[in-house]
Amino acid sequence: MSSSAIASLPGFRDLTPRECAVRNYVFAAWRGAAARAGFVEWEGPTLESTDLYRKKSGDEIIGQLFHFTDKGEREVALRPELTPTLARIVAARHRDFKKPLKWFQIGPCFRYEAPQKGRLREFYQWNADILGEASPAADAELIALGIEALRSLGFTSDDFAVRLSDRALWDRFLKTAGIEADRTTVFLQLIDKWEKDPPAVMDVKLQALGTSREAVAAFMVSAREEPGPLGPVIDDLTARGLGGFVRIDPGIVRGLAYYTGTVFEFFSLRAGARAIAGGGRYDHLVSTLSDGAVSMPAAGFGMGDVVLGNLLEETPGPCARLHEALAAAAALDVWVVVADEERRADALRLLQDLRGRGLRADLVLAAAKVGRQFQAAEAAGARTAVVVGAEWPVLKVKHLAQREEVTTDRDGVWATLAQWMEIGQPVG
Amino acid sequence: MSSSAIASLPGFRDLTPRECAVRNYVFAAWRGAAARAGFVEWEGPTLESTDLYRKKSGDEIIGQLFHFTDKGEREVALRPELTPTLARIVAARHRDFKKPLKWFQIGPCFRYEAPQKGRLREFYQWNADILGEASPAADAELIALGIEALRSLGFTSDDFAVRLSDRALWDRFLKTAGIEADRTTVFLQLIDKWEKDPPAVMDVKLQALGTSREAVAAFMVSAREEPGPLGPVIDDLTARGLGGFVRIDPGIVRGLAYYTGTVFEFFSLRAGARAIAGGGRYDHLVSTLSDGAVSMPAAGFGMGDVVLGNLLEETPGPCARLHEALAAAAALDVWVVVADEERRADALRLLQDLRGRGLRADLVLAAAKVGRQFQAAEAAGARTAVVVGAEWPVLKVKHLAQREEVTTDRDGVWATLAQWMEIGQPVG
Repeated sequence: MSSSAIASLPGFRDLTPRECAVRNYVFAAWRGAAARAGFVEWEGPTLESTDLYRKKSGDEIIGQLFHFTDKGEREVALRPELTPTLARIVAARHRDFKKPLKWFQIGPCFRYEAPQKGRLREFYQWNADILGEASPAADAELIALGIEALRSLGFTSDDFAVRLSDRALWDRFLKTAGIEADRTTVFLQLIDKWEKDPPAVMDVKLQALGTSREAVAAFMVSAREEPGPLGPVIDDLTARGLGGFVRIDPGIVRGLAYYTGTVFEFFSLRAGARAIAGGGRYDHLVSTLSDGAVSMPAAGFGMGDVVLGNLLEETPGPCARLHEALAAAAALDVWVVVADEERRADALRLLQDLRGRGLRADLVLAAAKVGRQFQAAEAAGARTAVVVGAEWPVLKVKHLAQREEVTTDRDGVWATLAQWMEIGQPVG
Repeated sequence: MSSSAIASLPGFRDLTPRECAVRNYVFAAWRGAAARAGFVEWEGPTLESTDLYRKKSGDEIIGQLFHFTDKGEREVALRPELTPTLARIVAARHRDFKKPLKWFQIGPCFRYEAPQKGRLREFYQWNADILGEASPAADAELIALGIEALRSLGFTSDDFAVRLSDRALWDRFLKTAGIEADRTTVFLQLIDKWEKDPPAVMDVKLQALGTSREAVAAFMVSAREEPGPLGPVIDDLTARGLGGFVRIDPGIVRGLAYYTGTVFEFFSLRAGARAIAGGGRYDHLVSTLSDGAVSMPAAGFGMGDVVLGNLLEETPGPCARLHEALAAAAALDVWVVVADEERRADALRLLQDLRGRGLRADLVLAAAKVGRQFQAAEAAGARTAVVVGAEWPVLKVKHLAQREEVTTDRDGVWATLAQWMEIGQPVG
């Protein structure tokens, strides 16, 4: 593939225009859903002190970081996620903002992990968070936002669902089962493998903790029937008409050491049941990162672009919608054809004028035969063409798809194009 | 300012929503101008092999890089600029694309330099390039694009200009003056300090090279009058009506060791005459980075967000336009007021419906007094409010600025809002 002497790094992408258009389409869906729900965008630095991540996640995170010592002897890391930056900013500047903060962010994140399908070393992540609101209504608002973003891409309840759990569910079980606090992490790590470990192995391990596979299974069934602490979140989403997307699943354990209440995962109902997004309530993070100086309830989620991008291409409805949007985004409004080089200056003036009025307009930069110019117009998906030739100031305007043609003067060009493109008034 | 234990790194920015909105406004101007001119967006990795930059710029670039050895023993660097990545991609995949390529890119770049006004360690850069077209028409197209982007932000020819030079101008002078090829770099470094060094010092240094301050000054005046190799670029821009923005200035020397033809700089006409953007023709880069495997003419420019952001805030016209756009972007369409907690479920359903139809809608998440909810609506800049209360399914719709009020049912809400907002039909 490459004739270049220097290749890109493993796990990093080159987004050529087609791939970049898909990225922008996803970004527009994320931004659009967030804006409609009253979230405002922020952005943090790509590089942070390594301590920021160590403080949130402990030393084990270091193994996944791109980190180094900069020329000023600072220990720095490419951000693996966005939440620590958010907590840092809010802890420092919370007095500047009205609560609750409904903030979202879209940007590149980096993890030094083995690249595979759905996992890269550089990826884009969308984060949405609500800070300063402890009510379960904030958790529901976030889940509704994630659902709306996926719906706006054409995904339905046949394509994805939201698994919902709560740390309090397991706290209740641990208490009932008499499992001691210092065994909580070991226990939750077992539950995380619930569907992967052979039942007999699982049972032996659970018995060593003083419970059994049967007891855990019975608890999971009862939790699904009695939402308990999740009741208000489910009621809220049901009121919004989104109840069909949500299911209680105490098996969602990932990150329970960090989350303090609701925890949820958006996952694909298609082959692989891949996680599309994950989040929950993290009421302690702002306090942890500010050494207790600021305390603020918080909840949020992150959605990456890699798994989502794969699902977009694999799911018929959303894929068709994507391709329609890409075609519309790529099409030019008008191609200026220079049929007589003596008139190039007039053509350039017209081109600049059309662009100034807000149209997407282009021409062949160097002198070329008229036939080749029309080929270029077609290749660029231009909807119309204006032919500037020896008849100047008389011009031909062509509708390329409908094969219509109008002969007019310079003033008439705009009127014709505006009519064909259903433009009400000059944009420029 | 900070009560957080961990601060951001020097030269890196936290973009809170106000600052992020300014960034997005600039990005929209860059993207809009590029799209209108038929450029398509691409993006490369944030991290590249250090060799990519060494190969383009030599070892001296290393001093300005954030570079390190990754966990796989690769020498890597945060990109200081975007052109080497572009040349790498195009060299490897040029057969996949029709020529000429008109590509643009917007993303973060990194330089380890002392932070100061107008210069940060992480900044956004807009790059626009045309590859596969050697004609001066490509140079003019790029300059026209830069001008249009700045015009769309409200800047006029009172605010900025484009200085234009060409390597060939100096090659001609060097030949006439009999200065040898191996002294070219030393000579151009002197010219770069033309306005800074005391005339007498400059003269001594130039005489050592076999010429004089007088000879150079005379050449500069004559070059301004006789565009020579720049003639076609200036004629093209003049035909477009953009001649007033451009001036020949042989004093633009920065990067002449790299550029192979036209070189230009957008600069502010306000105090400081700061450079807003720079670029030119670099016909050798693709060949250099591909070890001669692929050869392709190329030209492009880069425009950073830091100096431009400062100018936006300092220049009255563009600043007024910015603030207008920020206010419009921040305003919500409708605030849902829950006047009776018994009706929260109905209010949530309505909220979700309004968002699904494309409106920007919000409510106070937790139970609150009606007065506080209206305060929140006002603080969020909501244009209208819908009051859901005990009278359900009868609702009140209020136009907050005009203090109008309509009593209606659920179906009537949309009709009223659509009328007030001049929406033709449901967006959802």
